[in-house]
Amino acid sequence: MDYPNDQAPGAPVRSGIPEHGRIPKYYAVKAHISVLIEELGEGGLLPTERDLAVRYEVSRETVRQALRELLLEGRLRRQGRGTVVAGPKLEQPLSLASYTEGVRRQGRTPGRSLISLDRFPCSDALAAETGVERGEPVWHMERVLRADDERVGLESTYVSVARVPRLDSDFDPDSSFYAYLHERLGIAFGDADERIETVLATPREALLIGTPPALPMLLIHRVSRDTAGRPLERVRTLFRGDRFSFSAHLLGNGG
Amino acid sequence: MDYPNDQAPGAPVRSGIPEHGRIPKYYAVKAHISVLIEELGEGGLLPTERDLAVRYEVSRETVRQALRELLLEGRLRRQGRGTVVAGPKLEQPLSLASYTEGVRRQGRTPGRSLISLDRFPCSDALAAETGVERGEPVWHMERVLRADDERVGLESTYVSVARVPRLDSDFDPDSSFYAYLHERLGIAFGDADERIETVLATPREALLIGTPPALPMLLIHRVSRDTAGRPLERVRTLFRGDRFSFSAHLLGNGG
Repeated sequence: MDYPNDQAPGAPVRSGIPEHGRIPKYYAVKAHISVLIEELGEGGLLPTERDLAVRYEVSRETVRQALRELLLEGRLRRQGRGTVVAGPKLEQPLSLASYTEGVRRQGRTPGRSLISLDRFPCSDALAAETGVERGEPVWHMERVLRADDERVGLESTYVSVARVPRLDSDFDPDSSFYAYLHERLGIAFGDADERIETVLATPREALLIGTPPALPMLLIHRVSRDTAGRPLERVRTLFRGDRFSFSAHLLGNGG
Repeated sequence: MDYPNDQAPGAPVRSGIPEHGRIPKYYAVKAHISVLIEELGEGGLLPTERDLAVRYEVSRETVRQALRELLLEGRLRRQGRGTVVAGPKLEQPLSLASYTEGVRRQGRTPGRSLISLDRFPCSDALAAETGVERGEPVWHMERVLRADDERVGLESTYVSVARVPRLDSDFDPDSSFYAYLHERLGIAFGDADERIETVLATPREALLIGTPPALPMLLIHRVSRDTAGRPLERVRTLFRGDRFSFSAHLLGNGG
């Protein structure tokens, strides 16, 4: 099969033909479907697997492999029994703004569903990150994150029970935890360390978020402190890699 | 097969058993091998596929699937004919510091290999990002990034030819481009917008970086400006998702 030349000079594309000139057959199909995706535009309905197999003269398994990657990359999504062109990834700022704010900025409605809220004695590993002595009680709150009713992530928050004593009775899990801390407890965020990496969804995570298992995800670790520099919370947030990107504005030192 | 309970309270783990209680067989094997990885420690040699299949009483294909995910996640790596426990991911700061500085900070030696250096007329898409008029010449420099001779990434830099006229004759591709701009041309970075997402390596990228095809990668888009606010460069850097994580220090607004 021929291969569409999308390595046009000047376009910051990611494709092109390897030096050895061999392109896996499924990848050539993927490149053709990518062109089709551009033509169809967001929401456009893709032809069926069978039609694509006929069009490109390959097996349905080859088409399926190409579609699998395009789905993993968030360029296509399933809709009922069909496959449609997905919208752009949601862009979330890497900042101390909460998930709630980030999603709202993009004109989406944030939502959260409580999975579990437990208290347990603080472990050594968590002690430094939450400012809690080993053995003292810590909350673990786990919530599924939604954007416009689509499940997009899973968040685990660890915070001192002494600091937030009424988390179980006083806080609506479908609201912003940061707004709660600030408005009800007068706690404001000072600074945080974040680390972002890509991981594969575990079976439990995939089930909770409703993704295919082993979908590449973006995992953000956050350890934050209040304005007095006291450790506040340790958060682990997993976002669908096919639906999210993260942005940052960086300042130089002028040198 | 039984399943090791690694969802101990207090540990910010990512595993655990889904509500429906069903764990794919390969995933149970993966959880067992994860425990083994902890016991062996960095550099430890994993038993062979055959031995693992006997030990866990599963097929070699099941063991292979578990190993595949652990390799994709960077917890294992191939060494010669064996499989060993990988070291932690390299942590690169999300900052205007260059790749060179970031790698050095971790005690590794940075390296870069030139893949291509071309000049071509600027496209519409690149015009705003490079501060070049449409049709005026732009450089595209593509380099493989190394850390201690391990290939870890692939970088495309687009920059105005008028701004950096002697890039092809004056610049050693195995050195820091930022140091060159600063020391030779007196150009300092002012600020940049970055966006980070996860993508799958294309066949060409996989070949250049030496990764398995379709490995989840971290892709960083950067558009930077000099201290006078003029657009400077557009960069697309792809990092092995199994070898890199990115960190940021965030400051709140105190509110």
